[in-house]
Amino acid sequence: MSYRQTADFLLYDWLHVETLQQRARFAEHNRETFDAVLDMCEKLAADKFAPVNRLVDTEEPWFDGEKVHVPEASVAAARAYAESGMLAAAQDYEVGGMQLPCVVEMAAHAFFSKAGIGVGGAGMLTSGNANLLMAHGSELQREVFAKNEFAGRFFGTMCLSEPQAGSSLSDIVTRATPDGDDFERDPLGPRYRLRGNKMWISNGEHELAENIVHPVLAKIPGPDGKLVPGTRGISLFIVPKKLVDTDGQLTGERNDVALAGLNHKLGYRGIPNTLLNFGEGKYPVRGSAGAIGYLVGKPGEGLRCMFHMMNEARIAVGLGATMLGYAGYEASLDYAKNRPQGRPMGPGGKDATQPQIPIIRHADVRRMLLAQKSWCEGALALELYCARLVDEQHTGAPDDAAQAAMLLEMLTPIAKSWPSEWCLEANSLAIQVHGGYGYTRDFPVEQYWRDNRLNMIHEGTHGIQALDLLGRKVVMDGGKGLQLLASRINATIERAMRVPELAGFGNELAAALAEVGRATKAAWATGNPEEALANAVPYLQAFGHTVIAWIWLDVALCAQAGLSQSGADEAALRGKLAACRFFFRHDLPKVAAWLRVVASRDDTCRTMDEAWF
Amino acid sequence: MSYRQTADFLLYDWLHVETLQQRARFAEHNRETFDAVLDMCEKLAADKFAPVNRLVDTEEPWFDGEKVHVPEASVAAARAYAESGMLAAAQDYEVGGMQLPCVVEMAAHAFFSKAGIGVGGAGMLTSGNANLLMAHGSELQREVFAKNEFAGRFFGTMCLSEPQAGSSLSDIVTRATPDGDDFERDPLGPRYRLRGNKMWISNGEHELAENIVHPVLAKIPGPDGKLVPGTRGISLFIVPKKLVDTDGQLTGERNDVALAGLNHKLGYRGIPNTLLNFGEGKYPVRGSAGAIGYLVGKPGEGLRCMFHMMNEARIAVGLGATMLGYAGYEASLDYAKNRPQGRPMGPGGKDATQPQIPIIRHADVRRMLLAQKSWCEGALALELYCARLVDEQHTGAPDDAAQAAMLLEMLTPIAKSWPSEWCLEANSLAIQVHGGYGYTRDFPVEQYWRDNRLNMIHEGTHGIQALDLLGRKVVMDGGKGLQLLASRINATIERAMRVPELAGFGNELAAALAEVGRATKAAWATGNPEEALANAVPYLQAFGHTVIAWIWLDVALCAQAGLSQSGADEAALRGKLAACRFFFRHDLPKVAAWLRVVASRDDTCRTMDEAWF
Repeated sequence: MSYRQTADFLLYDWLHVETLQQRARFAEHNRETFDAVLDMCEKLAADKFAPVNRLVDTEEPWFDGEKVHVPEASVAAARAYAESGMLAAAQDYEVGGMQLPCVVEMAAHAFFSKAGIGVGGAGMLTSGNANLLMAHGSELQREVFAKNEFAGRFFGTMCLSEPQAGSSLSDIVTRATPDGDDFERDPLGPRYRLRGNKMWISNGEHELAENIVHPVLAKIPGPDGKLVPGTRGISLFIVPKKLVDTDGQLTGERNDVALAGLNHKLGYRGIPNTLLNFGEGKYPVRGSAGAIGYLVGKPGEGLRCMFHMMNEARIAVGLGATMLGYAGYEASLDYAKNRPQGRPMGPGGKDATQPQIPIIRHADVRRMLLAQKSWCEGALALELYCARLVDEQHTGAPDDAAQAAMLLEMLTPIAKSWPSEWCLEANSLAIQVHGGYGYTRDFPVEQYWRDNRLNMIHEGTHGIQALDLLGRKVVMDGGKGLQLLASRINATIERAMRVPELAGFGNELAAALAEVGRATKAAWATGNPEEALANAVPYLQAFGHTVIAWIWLDVALCAQAGLSQSGADEAALRGKLAACRFFFRHDLPKVAAWLRVVASRDDTCRTMDEAWF
Repeated sequence: MSYRQTADFLLYDWLHVETLQQRARFAEHNRETFDAVLDMCEKLAADKFAPVNRLVDTEEPWFDGEKVHVPEASVAAARAYAESGMLAAAQDYEVGGMQLPCVVEMAAHAFFSKAGIGVGGAGMLTSGNANLLMAHGSELQREVFAKNEFAGRFFGTMCLSEPQAGSSLSDIVTRATPDGDDFERDPLGPRYRLRGNKMWISNGEHELAENIVHPVLAKIPGPDGKLVPGTRGISLFIVPKKLVDTDGQLTGERNDVALAGLNHKLGYRGIPNTLLNFGEGKYPVRGSAGAIGYLVGKPGEGLRCMFHMMNEARIAVGLGATMLGYAGYEASLDYAKNRPQGRPMGPGGKDATQPQIPIIRHADVRRMLLAQKSWCEGALALELYCARLVDEQHTGAPDDAAQAAMLLEMLTPIAKSWPSEWCLEANSLAIQVHGGYGYTRDFPVEQYWRDNRLNMIHEGTHGIQALDLLGRKVVMDGGKGLQLLASRINATIERAMRVPELAGFGNELAAALAEVGRATKAAWATGNPEEALANAVPYLQAFGHTVIAWIWLDVALCAQAGLSQSGADEAALRGKLAACRFFFRHDLPKVAAWLRVVASRDDTCRTMDEAWF
């Protein structure tokens, strides 16, 4: 099935997103308006993004000492995306948005990720940045910065990491000092001068828009001039590349933000990734060195503000990984249907006098395609489920909203990590289906694989997600989040037990869930984080597979029910059931293997001496 | 441990290769001569290969319409390699060789794979090609072609695949027709004219040597002008790029072999990979179109001749994959020791006022390093074990030689496939250890990962290896090969049972072996190949993990014994024991998960309808 067909099935048949129109915020929406957005994005992605996906990989951004250049086609795609209104799709009508549910917005945005994840400057970053300001900025900051980002006039970044501090944000050393005696009286917010280096900044420098808005994490020194250790000392600032007035018009002053260099990457090459120097004096502004920035929220609350957006950012990363996987699935499915090679395996072997068959008829090629389908569609269902939870959190009844928020907390590490690992593996299988051709740059699959390798790294590495899950999420509120998730999983299992075709999977999922529960307790049995967390990544993997098995079983219940409806697309539904079966037969059994070291608090890695390597 | 330290341990302490000097063929060798070869290769690889590994990736071969250009440094490396004598290292003294044992030759050659797998035109291909002629060529063919390849005057290729026939060699359509009435009287061998296209030919065109020798698989049409279907119709020919006389001197005639184009690959970019047109008339020779080729061996025996070299070629691929993994392990170990980030996980969490620690002190980074060590050193031990079997096959007493040959047949699919999959995974972990830096081209690990992705494809894909293992090897001779392997594994288990530290692993290996045995029987219970082989790849994976667990247990027995010897390098030995423990705790449990679908003859993939995808 194409992505569109699968998305339609998941949105309408499984998640029933049409029912959202019963909520005041979405009252003007219905299936037609949702479909119109999906149609528009599908077409725009096909017209402007897919044709240049290889081009942006080949013609990397380059810096002439002054400006960063990207191919003109990428600029055109960025412009078309901004003009489509998708940057503000989920926003209020009054700020120019469409009040689209998050789940529909993400499903629609996914077309762009599939067509060209590095094309057009990654609109999601600008939306996310503007969302952050909508939540934590002052009224004027929202007006001047966020609205112009939603309108596509300004593009956004996220400036967290520094060359010496990636996973460990508590160690950032970018300093922010008050700018003049009147620093507290600037209408754009308390005004500071920032000095420091920010690393891995996507879209840190380009000519795609009139201005670039950098939200920057920095520390305000104490009275002794020292930085406060840890994350408590971190504040959030808006640092525009070009200064603006209170009407959002450029003042003509260039801020002291300079490109130190471009990172040359394995993939995602369409997006310039930069090292930025803030306040080194390359562009002195208003008479002195130091990048001018405006405080957002209160001092010391920078990380809290930034993490406000983290759940959605991590779902977006997971969905991007998923769509790269999906792109490879579609490409390899097409190849497998059209490439003749080999002959059927009959009881007496093969008959060389017979014509060759398309490789899709070989069981192992089907295995590779079915694994891709199972991983990518399973991941997609999880991402859309999470996006639906975001809508619930924002528009549901108070109890439902609170539950949705808690479930989201639980699922976010999985939504980020699982597709990053398994849709990457799907991309590897897409190469394998192509044989030698897949290893060449004449086919798109090698690029998907390279692009996707980023997703286990950025927005919190696999290791960080694992610590978040086992170290924080499953123990928060005395384990209430885990209990809530388990109750949702058990509800699906109970429904499955009443469906003969799926009851067996219900039992297997129940067993896996029980194993996860036991391993969680065993990991924390000594109460020592060092012991509990030593095998956090295998725990994350087992937990992720259990979650995806649950999602698949829930989707399969929907597909099984659909089979008896008139007008059903039987092949599509059978495909969902087969993909579910594949996951339970081929993948779920790995859960026990991963949990062994967790449940025994195995100390092989923890006690490994540096000298023994 | 560096590769050299590990290789020394495996060669001398584990495999006792010094004892080979008791055999007539190796009588002039001893540890000093072996070490001298290892030293020489280590130095040459460090001097000429490592420094240009990134260069050959960046400056891909290009074709000016006449010649293929590669960087001068790569040409120099090729020349230095040829001059080192390594091309003929394992050959008889009388043909200019060193009569080096295969196991030492492979361990020495591994330095080049680790330093720059795409540098210098892949000498292994030339050696392998010449070995083929030594085994199947006429005396003059050996003299004219093979000897000049060993000397580095000529370079070699292997021309098997065609654009429409990769895995399915029975479908090649390159034709060979007798060249003139006197075709059988050419001193260089029966002379034919070849016409057809050969795809994926490494080093198919270059200027690294005086001439290129192509061994080409082609079909001689029957009296009706038709090609014989299947592999029975395949013959082997030597097709030199430039014709030579019976003294091996160039005659000045260019043969009708033309470069149709270069393949642009994801990795292995230093090696020109080509599509060659044979006999299309671009370079008419001796008055007509058609590439002149000389039959090797008998008509119809081409594939048999070619497969004579396949075991060694597949061990070489496995070793290449291993060394790419090892290169990533060394790089990420170095990075992890030197990159500060984060703080220890104390009972009360982390203390941000403390200085940061090198990331190697985090349990999850140790996990990623230990996984690499466990996979790469385990794979290395298997490859050297297999190479030692080659020596046994060639120089052992008749019974030992026969057993070695049978064990090699059993182990070859694993030696080829296991490192291709798991040392690639190791490369992914090497990237992950580096974080964002690993995703840039400023560090070598992303290239290792790209390079290594080829190894699951060429020399028989994963799927082909799996069919070879479950479809042929485990059932050959009524299962004698499997029994022999099981008896070797059981011997190791028995020794482990007498060592308290390792007895537990012995039990676990015994259980895994029993599961493999049961699954093998269950797969074939209906006798229907279609059912038995539907899950051949999961079987291959489970079998591979069981073999590596056996190898690790055997290595661990050696390390455990070494601990009590005076002067032992305790850290190195503890490291081997920890890597063994890692494999048993983290990896071996996956065997059960893979075998489930095999033992149940699960039909999910086999019965998946094309319309359901």
